[in-house]
Amino acid sequence: LTPAAPYVAIVGASNANDEQRREAEAAGRRLAELGAIVVTGGRGGVMEAACRGAKAGGGQTLGILPTADRGDANEFVDVAIPTGMGEMRNALVVRSADALVAIGGAWGTLSEVALALHAGKPVFGVRSFELGDDAIVAVASGAEAAERAVAGAQTLK
Amino acid sequence: LTPAAPYVAIVGASNANDEQRREAEAAGRRLAELGAIVVTGGRGGVMEAACRGAKAGGGQTLGILPTADRGDANEFVDVAIPTGMGEMRNALVVRSADALVAIGGAWGTLSEVALALHAGKPVFGVRSFELGDDAIVAVASGAEAAERAVAGAQTLK
Amino acid sequence: LTPAAPYVAIVGASNANDEQRREAEAAGRRLAELGAIVVTGGRGGVMEAACRGAKAGGGQTLGILPTADRGDANEFVDVAIPTGMGEMRNALVVRSADALVAIGGAWGTLSEVALALHAGKPVFGVRSFELGDDAIVAVASGAEAAERAVAGAQTLK
Amino acid sequence: LTPAAPYVAIVGASNANDEQRREAEAAGRRLAELGAIVVTGGRGGVMEAACRGAKAGGGQTLGILPTADRGDANEFVDVAIPTGMGEMRNALVVRSADALVAIGGAWGTLSEVALALHAGKPVFGVRSFELGDDAIVAVASGAEAAERAVAGAQTLK
Repeated sequence: LTPAAPYVAIVGASNANDEQRREAEAAGRRLAELGAIVVTGGRGGVMEAACRGAKAGGGQTLGILPTADRGDANEFVDVAIPTGMGEMRNALVVRSADALVAIGGAWGTLSEVALALHAGKPVFGVRSFELGDDAIVAVASGAEAAERAVAGAQTLK
Repeated sequence: LTPAAPYVAIVGASNANDEQRREAEAAGRRLAELGAIVVTGGRGGVMEAACRGAKAGGGQTLGILPTADRGDANEFVDVAIPTGMGEMRNALVVRSADALVAIGGAWGTLSEVALALHAGKPVFGVRSFELGDDAIVAVASGAEAAERAVAGAQTLK
Repeated sequence: LTPAAPYVAIVGASNANDEQRREAEAAGRRLAELGAIVVTGGRGGVMEAACRGAKAGGGQTLGILPTADRGDANEFVDVAIPTGMGEMRNALVVRSADALVAIGGAWGTLSEVALALHAGKPVFGVRSFELGDDAIVAVASGAEAAERAVAGAQTLK
Repeated sequence: LTPAAPYVAIVGASNANDEQRREAEAAGRRLAELGAIVVTGGRGGVMEAACRGAKAGGGQTLGILPTADRGDANEFVDVAIPTGMGEMRNALVVRSADALVAIGGAWGTLSEVALALHAGKPVFGVRSFELGDDAIVAVASGAEAAERAVAGAQTLK
């Protein structure tokens, strides 16, 4: 792990469908291969698939949980922060990340996207919201989102 | 102030245009007339106009500030909470409210709308985002948003 | 309510004994008489007694709750913030206050005292902790604590 | 890193003296040798010394920063969370930990100790506060604190 490793958050719902999990896993794996730390909300669905992919890719995962119980983290989280802040922890996920990969269109996901856009961080979406002006850059796959996010994160520095 | 008074948040940008300020002020005034406590992020623009309206209507205002300095509240805030949490305080604005009035389309505003929708709280928008399925109920004016929000807040109880 | 009203927090345990409740109520009443807004954690015990006193003195009360449910506020809270942050909300109680009155010696109370001292805010204690160097200024009664706190808050400005 | 690894926080001031830094480094190193993840506030002084020790011992470090800038982490932090919450992040340090090692007696440190005691987590102190009833278990050295903390963390599970 190099100090300059980018942190990229993969955000999406816990009750995700098969395609969303597949894209999340691909995104996590590609981020790991590119040397990024994968940040998620630490729970199931998109978050778990993203972490599973990152571990398969040899990477490291950070889970920022809504509950105060570390045991609520999915099994692929390396370092867990049990915040006890509920959905307010979404702001910590965004603060911890240099760029976001958004998968699908849940309201919690949108709150993270909006905070990232407010902070000027690049957001890449796979079948996610369309907000006009390409605020969320729509990409075709989780792997492409990962590549764009790492490139975007480095441009920021 | 009755214990059963609804709390309604008026959310919108600090760099608001004239129309947005006008609608925010009308919304604040009407909320006050209807007995609601007006919650905002405590700063300028839409937030200040909303508080000004609420005071003109004889109501009470709560400002939940991003900074740790109470002096950053606009002059129409009755009770100020200097959170020192930055945009993370948006989650406190939403938690404090039974319903939201969204004016305009800034990213910070969208983060509050998304958190409210996630929590199942009604959101009424004046020239705000269109998210599909009338997730944000589009209304014509701040005054109408205020009336719908108070009615929506009471239905929840 | 004047904009320059000091905010004074009364902190202490929810499972308080009779003497602690009595002193908290006296402190709340005296703070209200002196024009201060009384800030508490919004729950029972010392917090409820403080709010009851403040209302008896004609003042205003702000309750910053650990839960996300406004209904958890005691009946003497005028404005409630349901933070959903658990004990982390202690930091918001301290940030909202210019000075602290600490009653009794619970660990949650100590966390608030410590944060206030870290921030350079005056703390007046009634049968509370002794931390050396009069970091907590020990006073004989809730009423005296209230008077010292208002004086201390004004000195800061 | 095993899922069952205990998380132990080392808390203390950023403006620490030589002895405090030495004990913090020894505590960090011993925690790493015992397989614990070392949690700190991510800054200098005790926090930096603790992280340096943990890395020398082959361990992993988590830094939960008060600022919103990851670059404020000391160079021995592996995973950094830039919270932007100021001292409120102390509550996250405590929530992330199974046990605490407290070094020295700064007010910020006391707030963390108090929150840990409130949550029923064991606290071991090296020249730290004396709170009565051995609430903080006084130990002679950072290494001993580390050993007691890991044992205490495991007892809790």
